[in-house]
Amino acid sequence: MRTLIKDLEENKKVKISGWVTKVRDTKWMLFIIVKDISGSIQVSLDKGTQNNLIEKFKGILENSVVSFTGEVKRNENVRLNGQEFISSDGEILSNALPLPIIDKANIDNRLNYRWLDLRNNDKYMIFLIQTAFIGGMREYLLNNSFTEIHTPKLIATASESGSEVFEVKYFKDKAYLAQSPQFYKQMAIASGLERVFEIAPAFRAENSNTNRHTTEFTSLDVEMAYIDSYLDVMNLEEDLLIAGLTKVKDLYGEYIKENFEKEIVIPKKPFPRIKLNDLYQELAKRYNYHIPEFDVGDMNKEAEALASKYALEEYGHEFIFITGFAKTKRAFYHMRKNDIPEGYDLIWRGCEITTGAQREHRYEILAKQAQEKGLGKDVDFYLQFFKYGCPPHGGFAIGVDRLTMLLLGLPNLKETMFIFRGPNRLTP
Amino acid sequence: MRTLIKDLEENKKVKISGWVTKVRDTKWMLFIIVKDISGSIQVSLDKGTQNNLIEKFKGILENSVVSFTGEVKRNENVRLNGQEFISSDGEILSNALPLPIIDKANIDNRLNYRWLDLRNNDKYMIFLIQTAFIGGMREYLLNNSFTEIHTPKLIATASESGSEVFEVKYFKDKAYLAQSPQFYKQMAIASGLERVFEIAPAFRAENSNTNRHTTEFTSLDVEMAYIDSYLDVMNLEEDLLIAGLTKVKDLYGEYIKENFEKEIVIPKKPFPRIKLNDLYQELAKRYNYHIPEFDVGDMNKEAEALASKYALEEYGHEFIFITGFAKTKRAFYHMRKNDIPEGYDLIWRGCEITTGAQREHRYEILAKQAQEKGLGKDVDFYLQFFKYGCPPHGGFAIGVDRLTMLLLGLPNLKETMFIFRGPNRLTP
Repeated sequence: MRTLIKDLEENKKVKISGWVTKVRDTKWMLFIIVKDISGSIQVSLDKGTQNNLIEKFKGILENSVVSFTGEVKRNENVRLNGQEFISSDGEILSNALPLPIIDKANIDNRLNYRWLDLRNNDKYMIFLIQTAFIGGMREYLLNNSFTEIHTPKLIATASESGSEVFEVKYFKDKAYLAQSPQFYKQMAIASGLERVFEIAPAFRAENSNTNRHTTEFTSLDVEMAYIDSYLDVMNLEEDLLIAGLTKVKDLYGEYIKENFEKEIVIPKKPFPRIKLNDLYQELAKRYNYHIPEFDVGDMNKEAEALASKYALEEYGHEFIFITGFAKTKRAFYHMRKNDIPEGYDLIWRGCEITTGAQREHRYEILAKQAQEKGLGKDVDFYLQFFKYGCPPHGGFAIGVDRLTMLLLGLPNLKETMFIFRGPNRLTP
Repeated sequence: MRTLIKDLEENKKVKISGWVTKVRDTKWMLFIIVKDISGSIQVSLDKGTQNNLIEKFKGILENSVVSFTGEVKRNENVRLNGQEFISSDGEILSNALPLPIIDKANIDNRLNYRWLDLRNNDKYMIFLIQTAFIGGMREYLLNNSFTEIHTPKLIATASESGSEVFEVKYFKDKAYLAQSPQFYKQMAIASGLERVFEIAPAFRAENSNTNRHTTEFTSLDVEMAYIDSYLDVMNLEEDLLIAGLTKVKDLYGEYIKENFEKEIVIPKKPFPRIKLNDLYQELAKRYNYHIPEFDVGDMNKEAEALASKYALEEYGHEFIFITGFAKTKRAFYHMRKNDIPEGYDLIWRGCEITTGAQREHRYEILAKQAQEKGLGKDVDFYLQFFKYGCPPHGGFAIGVDRLTMLLLGLPNLKETMFIFRGPNRLTP
């Protein structure tokens, strides 16, 4: 059993294992820096007295994996923590070949060797931090009676919008990859599961190469029955994000400040809320920004960035809810009141992270709204869910990868996905 | 805000919401049984004094969704808990149409209307129980420094076994759906993430219709670096299952005993272990079972069932590890010692739930083992992960749906998947 480097105690015999990150071969000594996920230590081998070990480790290449048995000693001459590991035995667990040449400034080149790219602290720490963020949110949901569901990713029809869906050869037939669990989490509500969530892959056949798009991403989906209005959904999302951010701040707040230069701010409730038309006016007045005709009734990238600027200036808040979108710009299943969708976008740090809404649960109205949008046979199976009684409900989805990108102030989704997938990238 | 029926207190005015599960229209009274996820209550409406409410609710069909404001009163004449809900106001939230005719004995017919099928306690409770099981295991992993990863489901090559993989149209190219995250969780190990897990869909294009096969299932995958041998992997899996089963027993042990007639037994460590050849001898001696020539070096369905019988008789244990499989019957990436794979199957209640192993992390040996199995270009991208140093590691996968089936003693995977997918089923 090996001991983590961070847990080493002086003068206690243990085994350590890790990567060789540096080798220094001097006249009298062979120094090997060993790194595991918790820290690094210098292993000092004496050429005068440790012939066997020297024989084994001489010429070892960086990135090889080794283990050493021995004990840590204080040595003020050692730069790394003023400690060195005096080894009585050691082993090469895996010999590395010389590394390929990687252009570190070129992210696509780095991604070709993602497993080497991730060996840098700042890269792999992203996933420890993401684990805490998602873990905190999932804990909140489980503590509040949400049931975890696993909805199918193979579906029979191109559903929401046929153009951006992947087609699968399914025996003698065709299937499609689910773009979201939307229809199925609503089915769960119609089934009597009153509160559900899912964290799972979603697929979009979008042939676009921006810093916030990908063909496969991880979606956190939530749906809740017996809400009084979409305000209950917004309230839930506030609590959820606070739970996640609190977990991140507790575990990694200091690390993130030092290494990503981002302060984790636990947002205050309620998050600021503004109607779309009022926001347009503020953006015009404050920043002389006028939404293009094409986007009226909706947001766009510039408006999202400025909405965050406004929220910070006016409320000192990183988040802002926007309501009152045009029905032409929202999905057919959003409930409407006075012809306005009962839903919202949530913006964080200049970027939309969620669309949420109360859903239309009344069969006739829902069928009519689907028809208005020109959706035909493809949503027929979905409409059936509402024929035999369905509670009022609402929910939202959060893109986990995008959320992590914003949390750490990273420039690109490619950095926050363990393995990125885009129109031109299916490897490694 | 509504109150859950289980939380009702007598003589306190609240709102309840739920399904209408029964309507009884008498000369003087209209009785409506309302059910939510927590329980049921009788709402008693008086035809003499509550004209408005009677007008609203007369003729209401079962499965409609309603809410009532009022208070619970003690009434020993009421069969359901000796309580009734006296309502001052009420609302129909969703009107149900008459139900379609469903043949309850025919599971495929039931699945056509899965959202109605799930409205029975014993059906939807499966998912609350599964949430606890997975939740307990995930909690164990998170508390033991495992990082959650999200590996791609869209992959470039048919990988492990080309025949059973789904093909996806990927822009002008082809992609495939991952059969397991095996290669990518090992990439995480090569990246320096020392302990990882993932709970995510996996896809198998198997054209078979048994009670334990499906084309899409949820897989819990675990991988851990710096193990000394596959015994460390077995030990981890023991702890993981104990954590999950303890959570289930704490929350639903009584419910499961009453409704599924299954006792949740927290297994004792270590689980019994037996070598395959020794097991063959025991099965021959005890049950006169002789493994067919075709399956020698491996298990089959009959042997699995008998292995459980043996474990119960000999050790009073529901679980049994089997080791010493033939290398011809195991994946090329299992480490071998004296030509025997360093891995195991774990059997529970007559069925295999896991294959686990130490993985071969040394590039040259791994490449040779791949070649021996006739795997060519398709695993080339994977072999690269081991060229530049990789720690020794091992892991396993558990099929969540099958695990739930065994937990509750259900006859068919179709009952334990929220929505089943098979060669002939892509809906709802």
